[in-house]
Amino acid sequence: MRLYIGLVHYPVYNKNYEIIASAITTLDLHDLARLARTYDVRRFFVITPLDDQRALVEQVRRHWTEGYGAKYNRHRKEAIGLIGVVSSLEQAIDEIAQSEGEAPLLIATDASRQKDRSVSCEKAREIIQRGEKAVILIFGTAWGLDKAILGLADYVLEPVSGRTGYNHLSVRTAAAIVLDRLAGR
Amino acid sequence: MRLYIGLVHYPVYNKNYEIIASAITTLDLHDLARLARTYDVRRFFVITPLDDQRALVEQVRRHWTEGYGAKYNRHRKEAIGLIGVVSSLEQAIDEIAQSEGEAPLLIATDASRQKDRSVSCEKAREIIQRGEKAVILIFGTAWGLDKAILGLADYVLEPVSGRTGYNHLSVRTAAAIVLDRLAGR
Repeated sequence: MRLYIGLVHYPVYNKNYEIIASAITTLDLHDLARLARTYDVRRFFVITPLDDQRALVEQVRRHWTEGYGAKYNRHRKEAIGLIGVVSSLEQAIDEIAQSEGEAPLLIATDASRQKDRSVSCEKAREIIQRGEKAVILIFGTAWGLDKAILGLADYVLEPVSGRTGYNHLSVRTAAAIVLDRLAGR
Repeated sequence: MRLYIGLVHYPVYNKNYEIIASAITTLDLHDLARLARTYDVRRFFVITPLDDQRALVEQVRRHWTEGYGAKYNRHRKEAIGLIGVVSSLEQAIDEIAQSEGEAPLLIATDASRQKDRSVSCEKAREIIQRGEKAVILIFGTAWGLDKAILGLADYVLEPVSGRTGYNHLSVRTAAAIVLDRLAGR
């Protein structure tokens, strides 16, 4: 398995379907880093074009990997150490291409079902666990990924369905379910 | 399926394995309520003996079910409306017994494997989905549920394992994975 994840803060939608750059939620950094460490993800890219927001992520990362946090909780250090801070999805893909020797397959997640390139959890799991290609799985913050980003993806994962039609999970809990389904043993 | 969940703030451990009452994390109320709504959970009990903390939960609940939040986001209203605020696990069990006509089966979750009454996800899923008995599934905050609570449980769910030995997820993401495994279709 050669799996990467990305948390996209731009371009995403706000409540009125306008394209925005969302704010970093520091708790999401912890939750997704811990998930990444649990599911053997190689790197967790936090993606935002805003300089001050990247600086905030770097500050959190330093605190837990080099600062007081590193001594306070070594488990957290292992997880937060997986964070990479980049200004765009392209930069994340470039970094993966450099370390893997090839561009990764891009699988986007979305809360609505797509007409094109939709992929089931079973199929995505097979692609990821076969490990023939590096894969980056991306999650949108705020009201979800810009359609232009979905258009770049090789596949768009089918939405998480529970037992009801309700389809409004937090990105943290949706990412947990998706990683367990796709990368769990 | 007659499933209930509980988020326990007392008695739980702190980092030094002392018994404490943990503080409410309001974001957990949202995340677990949205999971409850997604997985057809009948009620989500927030359990704390501290009056001011119960008042805080009530305030959050009112905001999203009756206050401005109810108009701002009706999806959130549906989820937060599932919250019940109680001062003890016993009170949660009593309320379930009143509405179901029988005491529920108690399934506790823990990050460490138990010697006694350990139950696999497959078995727990079967019990829950068969629906013969009402079930309450409880999650501990802070460093996990007091062993005395685990001792009261009919079953203790096997810990969530991903692909690595790492076993330090947030309660939000662990609850997401557990609900998807046990109550997903």
